[in-house]
Amino acid sequence: MAQPAAGRPRYVVGIDFGTLSGRAVVVDVAGGAVLGEAVHPYQHGVITDRLPDGTPLPPDWALQHPEDHREVLRTAVPAALRAARIDPADVVGIGLDATSCTMLPTRADGTPLCELPDLAGRPHAYPKLWKHHAAQRQAERINALAADRGEPWLRRYGGRVSAEWQLAKAMQVLEEDPVVFDRAERWIETADWLVWQLCGREVRNVAAAGYKGLRQDGRYPSAEFLRALHPRLDGLLPRLDGPLAPLGARAGGLTAEAARWTGLPVGVAVAVGAIDAHVTAAAARSVEPGRMLAVLGTSTCLIMNADAYHEVPGICGAVDGGVTDGAWGYEAGQSGVGDIFAWFVTHALPAGYAQRARDLGVSPYELLDSLAADQPVGGHGLLALDWHSGNRSVLMDHELSGVLVGLTLATRPEEIWRALLEATAFGARTVVDAFTAAGIAVDELTVAGGLTGNRLLLRIYADVLDRPLHVVDSAHPAALGAAIHAAVAAGAYPDVPAASAAMGAARRETWHPDPARAAAYAELYAEYRRLHDHFGRGGTDILHRLRTLRTHPTH
Amino acid sequence: MAQPAAGRPRYVVGIDFGTLSGRAVVVDVAGGAVLGEAVHPYQHGVITDRLPDGTPLPPDWALQHPEDHREVLRTAVPAALRAARIDPADVVGIGLDATSCTMLPTRADGTPLCELPDLAGRPHAYPKLWKHHAAQRQAERINALAADRGEPWLRRYGGRVSAEWQLAKAMQVLEEDPVVFDRAERWIETADWLVWQLCGREVRNVAAAGYKGLRQDGRYPSAEFLRALHPRLDGLLPRLDGPLAPLGARAGGLTAEAARWTGLPVGVAVAVGAIDAHVTAAAARSVEPGRMLAVLGTSTCLIMNADAYHEVPGICGAVDGGVTDGAWGYEAGQSGVGDIFAWFVTHALPAGYAQRARDLGVSPYELLDSLAADQPVGGHGLLALDWHSGNRSVLMDHELSGVLVGLTLATRPEEIWRALLEATAFGARTVVDAFTAAGIAVDELTVAGGLTGNRLLLRIYADVLDRPLHVVDSAHPAALGAAIHAAVAAGAYPDVPAASAAMGAARRETWHPDPARAAAYAELYAEYRRLHDHFGRGGTDILHRLRTLRTHPTH
Repeated sequence: MAQPAAGRPRYVVGIDFGTLSGRAVVVDVAGGAVLGEAVHPYQHGVITDRLPDGTPLPPDWALQHPEDHREVLRTAVPAALRAARIDPADVVGIGLDATSCTMLPTRADGTPLCELPDLAGRPHAYPKLWKHHAAQRQAERINALAADRGEPWLRRYGGRVSAEWQLAKAMQVLEEDPVVFDRAERWIETADWLVWQLCGREVRNVAAAGYKGLRQDGRYPSAEFLRALHPRLDGLLPRLDGPLAPLGARAGGLTAEAARWTGLPVGVAVAVGAIDAHVTAAAARSVEPGRMLAVLGTSTCLIMNADAYHEVPGICGAVDGGVTDGAWGYEAGQSGVGDIFAWFVTHALPAGYAQRARDLGVSPYELLDSLAADQPVGGHGLLALDWHSGNRSVLMDHELSGVLVGLTLATRPEEIWRALLEATAFGARTVVDAFTAAGIAVDELTVAGGLTGNRLLLRIYADVLDRPLHVVDSAHPAALGAAIHAAVAAGAYPDVPAASAAMGAARRETWHPDPARAAAYAELYAEYRRLHDHFGRGGTDILHRLRTLRTHPTH
Repeated sequence: MAQPAAGRPRYVVGIDFGTLSGRAVVVDVAGGAVLGEAVHPYQHGVITDRLPDGTPLPPDWALQHPEDHREVLRTAVPAALRAARIDPADVVGIGLDATSCTMLPTRADGTPLCELPDLAGRPHAYPKLWKHHAAQRQAERINALAADRGEPWLRRYGGRVSAEWQLAKAMQVLEEDPVVFDRAERWIETADWLVWQLCGREVRNVAAAGYKGLRQDGRYPSAEFLRALHPRLDGLLPRLDGPLAPLGARAGGLTAEAARWTGLPVGVAVAVGAIDAHVTAAAARSVEPGRMLAVLGTSTCLIMNADAYHEVPGICGAVDGGVTDGAWGYEAGQSGVGDIFAWFVTHALPAGYAQRARDLGVSPYELLDSLAADQPVGGHGLLALDWHSGNRSVLMDHELSGVLVGLTLATRPEEIWRALLEATAFGARTVVDAFTAAGIAVDELTVAGGLTGNRLLLRIYADVLDRPLHVVDSAHPAALGAAIHAAVAAGAYPDVPAASAAMGAARRETWHPDPARAAAYAELYAEYRRLHDHFGRGGTDILHRLRTLRTHPTH
């Protein structure tokens, strides 16, 4: 195994596999300085309309291509090493995170089924991205049966499991394409599959198994339960078995092939895989109990540790060791945030605004922010429900959809824009309030992610949440978090909290709420919660009926 | 009085004073052929933000400038006469209609108060356009008191009077600017004021007095009722008194000054004024009982005659002689239709769509229609409430606002577009259903107005309303209707129904519903009605609360 000489600097590589691209960073083990980075956009992006061979996909599908992930190893890692201007021989570990639950069926040797020529035209052979929402029907049945049987693990997931997770996705494969299900010898998270690609050993991480695989107290849901869902669904269990390891553990050493791809020494420590938002908590120095991290991006993930287990209705999951070994990790989420903003800019920004942004040399986002910044709270008369991509917490229902009320002929685009920013802040507060109500105090709130560049958004979040908002000073906190896990796997630190304290990013700034705006937002938040409960908790079922009509129009 | 020699052709001039422009037509009395027309856009348009001198206006205001109306007499009438290539000496009558309730305060000689130098900077001195919506608070009090006292006229207005009407508008003037109220010697509809300008005599029409002035059974609301609203509001009554005349009556002869303006002979018969949508019924040959006319434009007006009085909850008004003398005329309305579509194209059409429309050489409306035309019913998963400009029938509440539910990241502009078209069709059906439920059979439905150029809209209306839709073959039916009234005033026909039968426009086409689409729309219409009742009938008061926040933000 390669080992830098004593006294020489030591480095780790962290790789973050996102929704649209992968990013590698090279980090100094001692202080966490990021010395080099590189991004590689996926050639296939998110596959929503048709497979590479033209096979069309139904609505609500979202796939990825495994070759896009390998390509990140081959391009972004060497590029980050070059940018860092270090000797690769001084690298002691590599760690990675990925979106989750993003799962793929493979053969026993790890070959993705979608790469077999006879299966490449079958949609179910591809990795299902986290935001694949076509397994909602399966999720409904899982929820109904689990509630009916009183399955003990159900309460760990806020009382509802998601269509985005392992079991619903696997069940959709079995029911819609049993051939693919049968040919799949393994059913594995992308992060774990990538670790396998790097070290040649299939070692799964406990976090994804817990949060997305429903593994609690050492067990997946029982074979009996799975058979009650579908006579052959218990066949999933042998496709999942095998070694599991805690976060920060060493999965193995880099293989010769992976060393060629990445330019790293053979045998470098490979950390077990992790979930993107979760490793960000380490980068944000937010792994101590009572500290909540919100990663604001395409969607928002809210993460926190607590010393003990508490039941929090509507959160995504509570997993022992799910964020750091030895603590109970809690995850909640908002399924649409940045992608709602992108939708608006792409599909609702009038030509005049686009031209004005060009004339001013700013992005449409900046233009909208500047126009919306000085509006008094509530001055637009609008209220939105941020469910364009469904609701993850606290309703856990991906067949909900967005609502916008209060439109008048005087409504301007920047007002709708602001209402959408606010809606996501109300969504975040709904989650924070669920934790508080369950007895888990949120003492400190830190934010990270791509949206922290938006100052208006941060101001609105501080006012709506009515608490200080700390902003992580890192452009790539997930990749940094993966590097922190690599440092632990390499033995440089005893555990993730210690590595986080040493290598985590500083705070860039803290936003304090304005008392008057916070008071006004409290009133709007009360309206949001009423609208939320009406459309999301049975006041009306119209969103589901409209979804049914959309998916199955009568003509 | 000028009189064409026997045997020579006879012509009439009709003028339609709309929201943004005035249009004059020259029409052959014998068969109704339109020989010439001309349009004059108002220089000041709709005054919503500030007065000509820069004085800012609060939200929800909408004013006009009387000089814009005079200018139509001076420019559009002579231009239409030139275009018709007729001898003005052969013109026997002139008739006009205007939007309503559009009222102005004047001196005893008809001088608009806003034209007095010392009042020109006071917003309340200007004509309040029909869609001036800032008197909602006054309307609420009028409704509450009238209900409380059991005022007998209230039921003639569907149980609720509108903030758009005479009393609420006058009360707003008295309460907010008593100086203007005191200086006003007359408080008059623009149509009646224009007739006064033409013939030098103040003669009001019974229709506006009935529909917008609450005049029933020969009386305005009592002085006692008015004093209970405000101690000095009974001062309104003497500002309204004076001669009233039925539709089609001769108000007087053209004055020398008006003859100079228009190029018509002195003494030509001037018909009493009328309401724009109502004269359109004559142009559409839709004045027989059982025939409903829907004028689809910026807003929609639905008009029909019946032999007897029926109480129809939520319609705008039932007036004896209100559409034609001798029948009960019913009016209902949708306060926002075409202006909702214009709002979308102006404020929500993305740059790429605008460019595509230019590349294809079509309007944005045509592009959106073409993209939306082939969607299956319900395929967009959306449902909208068409309340961007409030709701006139059947809720009569101008502080409601628009709602859009079902948005997803896959929602495209043409889908929202179609949902907005559909929402106005559902609104129209809500009105038709109110008539039917009240025992007034709608045997035939004819549409006129600017939106009849939109074929997708007509198809959607036929399918949603699930009945044949007859389309009037006239580009300017209101002006033609005004000309028909002029012909009656000139003695060429005994009454409006006879003139309508002789001079009314033919049908351009009839749209028949498609049974499958109509069945699918029945399901969506049921959803619309549920959403309608939830947001409009007390399920939630959120739209009012948001409106209050918009008008009075706390900071």
